Amino acid sequence: MNSVVVHGFEVSELQSRVARAQALMADSKLDGLLLTSMDNIRYFIGIDSTFWESYTRPWFLLVPASGNSIAIVPEIGESVIRQAWITDVRTWPSPRPHDDGTTLVTKAISSLKRRYGRIGAELGREMRLMMPVLQLHEIGHGLSGVELVDGTSVLWHLRMIKSPAEVAKLQRAIDVAGAVYEQVPTFISLGTSEREVRRQFQMRLLKEGADQIPVVICRAGPGGPAEITASPTDRNLVDGDVLFIDTGTVFDGYYCDYNRNFQIGKARSALKFAQERVWEANEVGIKAAMPGVTASHVFEQMADCLSSDNRDLNSNGRMGHGLGLRVTEPPSIKLNDDTVLKAGMVLCIEPGLEYEPGKIILHEETVLITDDGSTLMTPRAPKQLPQID
Amino acid sequence: MNSVVVHGFEVSELQSRVARAQALMADSKLDGLLLTSMDNIRYFIGIDSTFWESYTRPWFLLVPASGNSIAIVPEIGESVIRQAWITDVRTWPSPRPHDDGTTLVTKAISSLKRRYGRIGAELGREMRLMMPVLQLHEIGHGLSGVELVDGTSVLWHLRMIKSPAEVAKLQRAIDVAGAVYEQVPTFISLGTSEREVRRQFQMRLLKEGADQIPVVICRAGPGGPAEITASPTDRNLVDGDVLFIDTGTVFDGYYCDYNRNFQIGKARSALKFAQERVWEANEVGIKAAMPGVTASHVFEQMADCLSSDNRDLNSNGRMGHGLGLRVTEPPSIKLNDDTVLKAGMVLCIEPGLEYEPGKIILHEETVLITDDGSTLMTPRAPKQLPQID
Repeated sequence: MNSVVVHGFEVSELQSRVARAQALMADSKLDGLLLTSMDNIRYFIGIDSTFWESYTRPWFLLVPASGNSIAIVPEIGESVIRQAWITDVRTWPSPRPHDDGTTLVTKAISSLKRRYGRIGAELGREMRLMMPVLQLHEIGHGLSGVELVDGTSVLWHLRMIKSPAEVAKLQRAIDVAGAVYEQVPTFISLGTSEREVRRQFQMRLLKEGADQIPVVICRAGPGGPAEITASPTDRNLVDGDVLFIDTGTVFDGYYCDYNRNFQIGKARSALKFAQERVWEANEVGIKAAMPGVTASHVFEQMADCLSSDNRDLNSNGRMGHGLGLRVTEPPSIKLNDDTVLKAGMVLCIEPGLEYEPGKIILHEETVLITDDGSTLMTPRAPKQLPQID
Repeated sequence: MNSVVVHGFEVSELQSRVARAQALMADSKLDGLLLTSMDNIRYFIGIDSTFWESYTRPWFLLVPASGNSIAIVPEIGESVIRQAWITDVRTWPSPRPHDDGTTLVTKAISSLKRRYGRIGAELGREMRLMMPVLQLHEIGHGLSGVELVDGTSVLWHLRMIKSPAEVAKLQRAIDVAGAVYEQVPTFISLGTSEREVRRQFQMRLLKEGADQIPVVICRAGPGGPAEITASPTDRNLVDGDVLFIDTGTVFDGYYCDYNRNFQIGKARSALKFAQERVWEANEVGIKAAMPGVTASHVFEQMADCLSSDNRDLNSNGRMGHGLGLRVTEPPSIKLNDDTVLKAGMVLCIEPGLEYEPGKIILHEETVLITDDGSTLMTPRAPKQLPQID
């Protein structure tokens, strides 16, 4: 574990993100980006807060195509934003239902240097607008000669390529979870409930240095869980179960996302064959991920490995995705995602198989695409499932 | 602590929520509600999942003005939703960027019994749309004779009044945090860093039974923290600090939200006077909260108590709010919020004061409005700050 990874970023790092955004804005004929979501705002300001969990007061960051960014935030957030490197901070006494920043945002957009008359907002794929939709419409109606358009492409092109400082944060999140995955056999046994597994797992993540634990999935079932998205239940682990644990653990805003499987008691042969096959498919995916190939190519390589018996491979729709300030980011490792992989992308590679009805096996690892290949960031899962009695 | 509070709800409880929603829809001339956010969906289906942390695949629930609800979810979520009581479940292989549920949602809305030609969506105040805005527009364009309008008023009228089963979950979340607040003097001391306070606090919340810990704020400063929204830092507690801890801890989806203050070493007189004044204002707010008065009235009573020296009371914009499936919900305890309090509302009452520049004192307690008054749900903070050396 890299103990020198600290919270926060150098100002030069944040400045270079703005510079990259501005270059992309020029290509996309945008005069600026209007941001409201925690992940997009913190990408530029470098500051964290759990205060955004409240939906009462919207926050805004306006990143112009040239010049300085403008933060428009509720008065209660002023001192937070002043700790960041943004100097142009405008506030209002929020909550103020009839005008919760709308006038300030409209005015700030109107004052920007106008070249294309287009401001990019968080309207598209894998984006969530973190102000009310009605407020977006009000801002749009208040503008004259400027249009709010979709800025998603710029934002994802930017965020898909991680800087070394971002990679270090992601690695730290991965290492925190890795330390706890190693301990799993020491704190669970036959009879432990899914919910208790989660509780023990979460506590150890905090002990190892996690800042937040937004996602922990703990599901078990005979030969594999029947589904891998719901919350844990009070069902106790029994002989023959496979326990699936997956976590999106956060260090300084950056997520890890990888799972591990544990054999509870004895395994059936069908499971052993299936799980080795998925492990091998993961190996194939890890090796296929390199600069210049498409996300779709990585999927196809894994599908070839898994599909000799013609099972439906696509029930989860994909076998991986990007990782960063969200637990899932573009691209998708799936058919028809023609995103070309580039150095700096961090990708979760996760082949899965429902090898019998109601029995899922999934393996997930994370790679960093480098100039000449890729580097595995997760501690590779063993080919045989760790057994717990 | 009430040990009989379990996860999940009786189907009859969920059915009665739908019935209440349908009555409100009739009043608002809506043919249905289109829901995408975790809190609104789980209000009706009663199921939790951290899977929603991913923005890749939108989920939809359509609650019609009469008849059965329709869940439209990615294939990967089908088995989760089948565990709920919803029988009409429609799925698609997501992610499918060109049509991530849009056609299914449009078709489902079009098939509803049409009376007003209006479907309420999550467009307004303290709502967040959990699909891309462009997708909302696509759905709107695909409809003929049906309009997507703002359904916020129906949703908040519904959710503002908590059932006894919901109150029990809120009480459990409050009790979990209460148990940990009591332990604070045992695990912090002079020299502990804010970040370490948070880590220790989070671990104990899990031990006491928290499911999720989305919000923990730990800030300290001489005589009080300078701000109370940012993440903790590596600054160590020193003599004369006031440590502010606030948490939005979750049990089965329901939040608590209350803080506690701790005196580190010796207190100055100015602080003692200010903090007793805020404690008294809290007492006044707790007593003022009863059925029939407005949220604004509760604010005014506390303001009267705090403002004899004409200090600015409104820097945070309000002195309280609703609580439930979000850490903050309507109404706001503030001037001009004319929401009339009713039995079943759960309200956080939180007067605060910046008694000297950069020194904030805030007290927060939670009450349940009853038929003839209110019940305090939080263990009342002591009038003198607990001291830690």
